[in-house]
Amino acid sequence: MTDLDHMTTNPFDDDKLHEECGVFGIYGHKEAAAHVALGLHALQHRGQEACGIFSYDGQQFHSHKGMGLVGDNFSDQAVMAQLKGNASIGHVRYATTGGTVLRNVQPLFAEFEFGGFCIAHNGNLTNTQAVRRTLVRRGCIFQSDMDTEVIVHLVAVSLYANVEDRLIDALRQIEGAYSLVAMTKDAMIGVRDPFGVRPLALGKLDETYILSSESCAFDIIGAEFVRDVDPGEVIIIDKNGVRSIKPFGNTAGRFCVFEYIYFARPDSQIEDRSVYGVRKAIGAELARESGVDADMVVPVPDSGVPSAIGYAAEAKIAFELGIIRNHYVGRTFIEPTQEIRHLGVRMKHNANLNEVKGKRIILVDDSIVRGTTSKKIVEMMRQAGAAEVHMRISSPPTAWPCFYGIDTPKREKLLAGQYTIDEMAEIIGADSLGFISIDGMYRAVGEAKRNNDAPQFCDACFTGEYPTRLQDRDDDLSDERQPTLPLLAEQGK
Amino acid sequence: MTDLDHMTTNPFDDDKLHEECGVFGIYGHKEAAAHVALGLHALQHRGQEACGIFSYDGQQFHSHKGMGLVGDNFSDQAVMAQLKGNASIGHVRYATTGGTVLRNVQPLFAEFEFGGFCIAHNGNLTNTQAVRRTLVRRGCIFQSDMDTEVIVHLVAVSLYANVEDRLIDALRQIEGAYSLVAMTKDAMIGVRDPFGVRPLALGKLDETYILSSESCAFDIIGAEFVRDVDPGEVIIIDKNGVRSIKPFGNTAGRFCVFEYIYFARPDSQIEDRSVYGVRKAIGAELARESGVDADMVVPVPDSGVPSAIGYAAEAKIAFELGIIRNHYVGRTFIEPTQEIRHLGVRMKHNANLNEVKGKRIILVDDSIVRGTTSKKIVEMMRQAGAAEVHMRISSPPTAWPCFYGIDTPKREKLLAGQYTIDEMAEIIGADSLGFISIDGMYRAVGEAKRNNDAPQFCDACFTGEYPTRLQDRDDDLSDERQPTLPLLAEQGK
Amino acid sequence: MTDLDHMTTNPFDDDKLHEECGVFGIYGHKEAAAHVALGLHALQHRGQEACGIFSYDGQQFHSHKGMGLVGDNFSDQAVMAQLKGNASIGHVRYATTGGTVLRNVQPLFAEFEFGGFCIAHNGNLTNTQAVRRTLVRRGCIFQSDMDTEVIVHLVAVSLYANVEDRLIDALRQIEGAYSLVAMTKDAMIGVRDPFGVRPLALGKLDETYILSSESCAFDIIGAEFVRDVDPGEVIIIDKNGVRSIKPFGNTAGRFCVFEYIYFARPDSQIEDRSVYGVRKAIGAELARESGVDADMVVPVPDSGVPSAIGYAAEAKIAFELGIIRNHYVGRTFIEPTQEIRHLGVRMKHNANLNEVKGKRIILVDDSIVRGTTSKKIVEMMRQAGAAEVHMRISSPPTAWPCFYGIDTPKREKLLAGQYTIDEMAEIIGADSLGFISIDGMYRAVGEAKRNNDAPQFCDACFTGEYPTRLQDRDDDLSDERQPTLPLLAEQGK
Amino acid sequence: MTDLDHMTTNPFDDDKLHEECGVFGIYGHKEAAAHVALGLHALQHRGQEACGIFSYDGQQFHSHKGMGLVGDNFSDQAVMAQLKGNASIGHVRYATTGGTVLRNVQPLFAEFEFGGFCIAHNGNLTNTQAVRRTLVRRGCIFQSDMDTEVIVHLVAVSLYANVEDRLIDALRQIEGAYSLVAMTKDAMIGVRDPFGVRPLALGKLDETYILSSESCAFDIIGAEFVRDVDPGEVIIIDKNGVRSIKPFGNTAGRFCVFEYIYFARPDSQIEDRSVYGVRKAIGAELARESGVDADMVVPVPDSGVPSAIGYAAEAKIAFELGIIRNHYVGRTFIEPTQEIRHLGVRMKHNANLNEVKGKRIILVDDSIVRGTTSKKIVEMMRQAGAAEVHMRISSPPTAWPCFYGIDTPKREKLLAGQYTIDEMAEIIGADSLGFISIDGMYRAVGEAKRNNDAPQFCDACFTGEYPTRLQDRDDDLSDERQPTLPLLAEQGK
Repeated sequence: MTDLDHMTTNPFDDDKLHEECGVFGIYGHKEAAAHVALGLHALQHRGQEACGIFSYDGQQFHSHKGMGLVGDNFSDQAVMAQLKGNASIGHVRYATTGGTVLRNVQPLFAEFEFGGFCIAHNGNLTNTQAVRRTLVRRGCIFQSDMDTEVIVHLVAVSLYANVEDRLIDALRQIEGAYSLVAMTKDAMIGVRDPFGVRPLALGKLDETYILSSESCAFDIIGAEFVRDVDPGEVIIIDKNGVRSIKPFGNTAGRFCVFEYIYFARPDSQIEDRSVYGVRKAIGAELARESGVDADMVVPVPDSGVPSAIGYAAEAKIAFELGIIRNHYVGRTFIEPTQEIRHLGVRMKHNANLNEVKGKRIILVDDSIVRGTTSKKIVEMMRQAGAAEVHMRISSPPTAWPCFYGIDTPKREKLLAGQYTIDEMAEIIGADSLGFISIDGMYRAVGEAKRNNDAPQFCDACFTGEYPTRLQDRDDDLSDERQPTLPLLAEQGK
Repeated sequence: MTDLDHMTTNPFDDDKLHEECGVFGIYGHKEAAAHVALGLHALQHRGQEACGIFSYDGQQFHSHKGMGLVGDNFSDQAVMAQLKGNASIGHVRYATTGGTVLRNVQPLFAEFEFGGFCIAHNGNLTNTQAVRRTLVRRGCIFQSDMDTEVIVHLVAVSLYANVEDRLIDALRQIEGAYSLVAMTKDAMIGVRDPFGVRPLALGKLDETYILSSESCAFDIIGAEFVRDVDPGEVIIIDKNGVRSIKPFGNTAGRFCVFEYIYFARPDSQIEDRSVYGVRKAIGAELARESGVDADMVVPVPDSGVPSAIGYAAEAKIAFELGIIRNHYVGRTFIEPTQEIRHLGVRMKHNANLNEVKGKRIILVDDSIVRGTTSKKIVEMMRQAGAAEVHMRISSPPTAWPCFYGIDTPKREKLLAGQYTIDEMAEIIGADSLGFISIDGMYRAVGEAKRNNDAPQFCDACFTGEYPTRLQDRDDDLSDERQPTLPLLAEQGK
Repeated sequence: MTDLDHMTTNPFDDDKLHEECGVFGIYGHKEAAAHVALGLHALQHRGQEACGIFSYDGQQFHSHKGMGLVGDNFSDQAVMAQLKGNASIGHVRYATTGGTVLRNVQPLFAEFEFGGFCIAHNGNLTNTQAVRRTLVRRGCIFQSDMDTEVIVHLVAVSLYANVEDRLIDALRQIEGAYSLVAMTKDAMIGVRDPFGVRPLALGKLDETYILSSESCAFDIIGAEFVRDVDPGEVIIIDKNGVRSIKPFGNTAGRFCVFEYIYFARPDSQIEDRSVYGVRKAIGAELARESGVDADMVVPVPDSGVPSAIGYAAEAKIAFELGIIRNHYVGRTFIEPTQEIRHLGVRMKHNANLNEVKGKRIILVDDSIVRGTTSKKIVEMMRQAGAAEVHMRISSPPTAWPCFYGIDTPKREKLLAGQYTIDEMAEIIGADSLGFISIDGMYRAVGEAKRNNDAPQFCDACFTGEYPTRLQDRDDDLSDERQPTLPLLAEQGK
Repeated sequence: MTDLDHMTTNPFDDDKLHEECGVFGIYGHKEAAAHVALGLHALQHRGQEACGIFSYDGQQFHSHKGMGLVGDNFSDQAVMAQLKGNASIGHVRYATTGGTVLRNVQPLFAEFEFGGFCIAHNGNLTNTQAVRRTLVRRGCIFQSDMDTEVIVHLVAVSLYANVEDRLIDALRQIEGAYSLVAMTKDAMIGVRDPFGVRPLALGKLDETYILSSESCAFDIIGAEFVRDVDPGEVIIIDKNGVRSIKPFGNTAGRFCVFEYIYFARPDSQIEDRSVYGVRKAIGAELARESGVDADMVVPVPDSGVPSAIGYAAEAKIAFELGIIRNHYVGRTFIEPTQEIRHLGVRMKHNANLNEVKGKRIILVDDSIVRGTTSKKIVEMMRQAGAAEVHMRISSPPTAWPCFYGIDTPKREKLLAGQYTIDEMAEIIGADSLGFISIDGMYRAVGEAKRNNDAPQFCDACFTGEYPTRLQDRDDDLSDERQPTLPLLAEQGK
């Protein structure tokens, strides 16, 4: 359907990295599923391609899944009425391939001897194929190509007696990044991998406990943020309250620093930092590290706004909306013909002509991935008459792919994987280009500097230093991921 | 949605038993999937609720499934183009419950260590729950509530080295009725259970072998009928041709006699008998066994037509279309209001007023299940002015439920399970009522009489003598069939 | 979408002429719209492409239209609940072009100064373009390309004071065939054109009057047939009962004889004749006129059945189902690839192999239009081993197009328009071919012979003698029918 | 469907006024329709409920309409391929009622004697019913309840010879606000009503002329802004270039000042003013008129941002994103249960907790309509711990309904129609509330002050001084708008 060569002219493919998932669960509330729907809506920025909610009513599990936004799938009262029970978990998903089908939509469910089990996963495993191969050999039948299904089968074949022990048994066999929310007939369980790469937070609404990828989802339902789930922690919420297990001992986390820079919502707080505050601080660091004389600071909407505010305030230069964003962007977009293909980026952004003309401009954006959009935005500013265009980026150069749940191009497609900063400036056509430094970024999150022996964060996309083994990559097992049956094309009424 | 109490006023619920499935496969033809679509279309009478086709192209399997008719799902050239390869199998399904969902649509597919395996099943197992319980205990995860999935898991966990041996290993553990068509990357396999309850035939088109539930599906693609698969026979079709295995030894089949009476298409031939010929012969037997003086023989359309022709010819009474059928019946129907509910049956049938008025009529139908439609048709003929209405039925009284793949009411809902023939005549309001006798039926299929020690056919629905154990029924395991998660309600685009 | 050259390989394009419409109305019943839905269902054979129902509740009109079958559009209780009121009219439509869109679906509605007016039309006008041109010149804006809209505008611009007079004023300006059912806030009106080419009947259910294209639709709701509306009669049904006006004086009707042969349902009676009876009588005439020695009479299902019964009884040859019809035909069909295109006809029909082999067969069908299907059926019988194939047709050769509401090919596409009977026999490959004679047909309907000075029926498709002027054809105005805007492609929710 | 009493808890009903339409046309470009689609996308903020495009290829008109966004309806290459020709016009629509149906979607088309005519309309007429009544009396049949259809019928029945003269003849009979783009086979025509209430601009792309509601739509296709169409001007674009007619003489326009405040996109320029610039200037005026000591200026996203920037810069107070907006809002929304209804506003907005806590905040928004959202936002800020909440509004109090194409509540539902500013402050719970003054607003747009004898703008919603008669309102003809047939419920495939 989509011509891959032209992918970058998709005006809504804004050359950003994409988070792959968000999870949310609530245990012990009479409107559990409705609250999960609201929570997922607040986490919608973590995944827009599909969503699902399961509930448990003391007797049976209920579920509903759909492609698209939470609001589009969970606004129907008939749908919500069927999601009975006072325990519920849900998931939003960004799919990395075009072939998203419902059987790849989470939460996953399996019927075990001891009852139903459902699970929602944010993150990505790095030894999926190795484990999967073993499981298939012993007769396990896989229904999807999600790494999450590996966890479900490991639980199914575990010889331990109860669900918790089976789950911990399963976790010991997997590697990579995972923030999980699971539900059985007796409990809701939250898990964060030993490095705590992806976020997971505990909240409370009256006497009800909640798990959420981000704290902003507590606000929408009027709940309070209790604390982050610790790296390597398993939290069990049942009728007796909250218990914590640390099957991996106390581990020093390496939270994904890019969550602060771009993925998380600015109104979330993660590991005692305000996301908005970190972004403004990066902006201020940028102004100090690579200041330039100019007439105005212009954010690339919308993700560049907090850093641009921070930059403008620090540099005492006017903050102006020099680029106007079209709010009405949907799943589909007008396919530009050959003739008008170069207009693509304007589907989403337009230069604010009267403001920009003749001015020296500092554009602030959060990252450069392949560089395609940056090039077009610089060009658009010049066509609008900007006298100078300086680009400042609130992350270090993105030079390495992520294996922990973020959809990244291969290294050879990453602009910073191939070029120096000067070369990049020339490619995108900017008068100057500046990235925040690694240490500047660490300062903005409140650290003195990066501890190179034991980095405080996962910054692998900037440094290439991955916190875990990458077994599937190293075994070159990616081809095994191709099943002999492509994802089923299903239809019906 | 549907009010069960009013089910019988559904004008299209014609108080018939329903076949649950049809299967078709072809190996070694460059338009394999297109031929399977045509074959399934010819088998559409065996199931109209859903259909699916898988193909294998030497590298990968491809599939498409959908709710509804074959023509509605496999007419799109884009769909057919994706079903590449020269091996293909397919399935049409009649679902016994309203909750048909795509994951219950066949063929089923599983990815094994040695590659993909897909299977289509006509029939019903009688020890599904017992086997399933064992499999779940050892960690198998079920995705559907179809008994066919039990076979797939048994193949998956078998310790034998190759697919054939694994399949035979699986078959030894199951009981009931099954005609199977399976496909691996190397072969197409056909299986008929030891009693051969459901039909399965081998055909040939040039050098290409074909498996089909009925021979009428060979005609549509211009193929020739080779022979029936034997009861208990496993047929393997691969690049070396056709091989036959009889893992259960030589078994004396007990083919379902109701296939002759109603389920199979009149233009099929099964076990050396023409279905149309059997039906006419039953009509003639009926005329001899329970003749009555009348002005015309009127078939209840359309299934009563061949027997009515046989009856009329034998009795030398005029054959007339005294009932006209509305051809435009769809999946949905006009919901009669309370006021006009009694008009239901006329949605499908109408008395041919001018012919019927003042005449003595012999109505010929194939069976009486609950009796609801028969009652309405007799009433309709009387309102049209018929002087006498005699009902003749081309099957013995249906008094016992089927456990082998036919959707039957429980015994207490079967009219013949509760009442004598005289009582039934009174209930449906006929001047007289006659059923073919058991021996008359055996004569019509060419036997001298029923061999009561070793019946030549499965006639359990008339006699209550089931050819196999009914373990799930006897263990009262039907409740275990209820999963804790009801069938997933899925939606999407 | 459809390749016109291959149209005839559409297995469901059975080379038949197609009726274009059916109409039904009821006045003064508290479940008016539900009864109209049932009535339209009984008239579904007159048009399957679209349907619509309007009702009036004393204050407002309500409507619902849809593509497809009545059952598919009017089975939803929410839809029916909105069709309030005790007066209602409806329409089923067969469209001659692929581009059916909702704005071409009837009934048509217009808001006049004196209130709403809606109308449903069966038939076709022959001076549409001439009238339309005049109306557009004076400022009328057309919304569809239906000739019915001409009637609506003529009513709108009429200078008469009340609706009846305006309608009669309009009728005086149009030519062609029309059976109309209209509804205003005060009355339901039925009209049949002066020649009465299309049928229209008056029925009664208790104190409620009903208008219907055919009497079979009275049966479905338990109403009684009162009489046919006379040619040239306007019937007004309102709270005072039934009034009749004959604005054209007493006219001698020329009812379409093809309605007896094929279009009408066999269980209808029209102008004092039973349709089924006429068809059997034609079969008997055929046996007398062109008898041939044979082993069996085989109807081409399903329309050939009554004539085949008549033929078999007269000739004393066995009546057998030598062709079996697949009942599961839908709107779409499996597109045959080049390879298997010749299999097309078998999508719908299959030879009953065991019966046919070695036999001399008389095939009885109702008509030959282009001859494509006849050729394939004869070929199919030969491949099944028939010793001889004789074709007998229960209509005279169809040599002229219809301009009165039947979708016919142009004369040059009609086989009988180009070839002699002997040539036709050779083309379709039959051992012999016989058509009923014109006088034989007139005898079968009860006339002594055709009155060539004033034919009793419209038989223009056989004789080329049209009862009315064909102004649009003669003015060659067909091109004006092409609007500068093709039918609007509309979508939405 | 929607419970009107709860409408205000619709989280996406942000208590704003809504523009009803946007128009765009291009004449003489080989990719005309594709450019119209892009232009409409840039005008999407003027209407999101439906959209339509017509094109003309020299022979025929082509069209496509749909409910929803431009991107959702015009992204399919097959759709675009059918919109052939080098002239094209389009429309986006915001419907004021729930019952939007396709026949109410513009452009409207009519087939006249001299060929096709299509028209797209932004604005609202004030004598629709009076004119419509006259037209119906003379036999015109209306198909929609849009006032635009009145214009089409007036053109149809005009006695003038050519389209231009007929259109001007029609314009002389209508009153109210209209910016029109029309297309015939020979020309594209743009019209702005004598007061120029709605915007319309002329652009140029190479040798091709373009008409657009706003200049921002020129940018998306790389065209240049030529000039505004003058109030009362008719512009004709044909193969000879551009001609201008002023049938009403030179009129002093009264452009809608609310277009600057809220409706228009900030990157548009209208009547020589930059919309973004006007908004910042209002912010600065607000700071001067009603300054207050505070810690931060917080815009209510997104429309409050430019004024907040202007305010913050003038007041030298930090500009901060104290409210975070959820970008993923669709057409549907999660229906809050009774329990959680109060959470509604948080579906769209969330307080940025860490920034807001303990701070004195100046909220800047563009208007207060019913006040429902303002109340919830103030409450949300207080719950987030704000020390003080001051509200500043960049428009004067909205106290009167608009009759010129903006969807406004009746006066009794407008907060400013019922309460003083102090009362309003108390109702919404703010520590202080300030609106820009009428003269402050006039200063911000560059006037010294309002000329009360001949106001420079239409400011009727603030002052109650309407530039035209309001005949329908004064005649109380609104009830005649109710047709006897409610908008047709149509369905199909």
